[in-house]
Amino acid sequence: MPTIVVEVMPKAELLDPQGKAVAGALRRLGKTEFTGVRVGKRFELTVEGPADAALLAEVQELADTVLSNSVIEDVTSIFVLEAVAGETH
Amino acid sequence: MPTIVVEVMPKAELLDPQGKAVAGALRRLGKTEFTGVRVGKRFELTVEGPADAALLAEVQELADTVLSNSVIEDVTSIFVLEAVAGETH
Repeated sequence: MPTIVVEVMPKAELLDPQGKAVAGALRRLGKTEFTGVRVGKRFELTVEGPADAALLAEVQELADTVLSNSVIEDVTSIFVLEAVAGETH
Repeated sequence: MPTIVVEVMPKAELLDPQGKAVAGALRRLGKTEFTGVRVGKRFELTVEGPADAALLAEVQELADTVLSNSVIEDVTSIFVLEAVAGETH
């Protein structure tokens, strides 16, 4: 069964408190080479049947309306991950 | 400045309450073609200087120790996203 990946990131112009917290943690660990961290979400949707254009259009709509909050987040990518037998994740 | 992406997903054998909630929402919307949903995290780390092998080894270690909880999560991928002038995210 194919898996469709949807990636959602906080909008670039907005504060990202979770990313700021991680950046602060890295700084406290002495990892000063990291100048910024942003934390977003990765959805993996498993579907029955083929991942055709109609399904991808539907996923695009769901990504914009259900999986992300368009006020604060952007859908940065949608792509099909081919199912591989014995895949580990 | 290069950006390094770290992707973390809940382990396959564990329940993923957030994914279950999204799957339930899709089902209630009548989207029965989706048989499963898993929700993970995507970190974008911006670094000063080149993303060389030493830095990637450091990111791998941070991904395993700081960015993920190895009891419940797997680091599924780490890769370099080349910085593009005018990039929108």
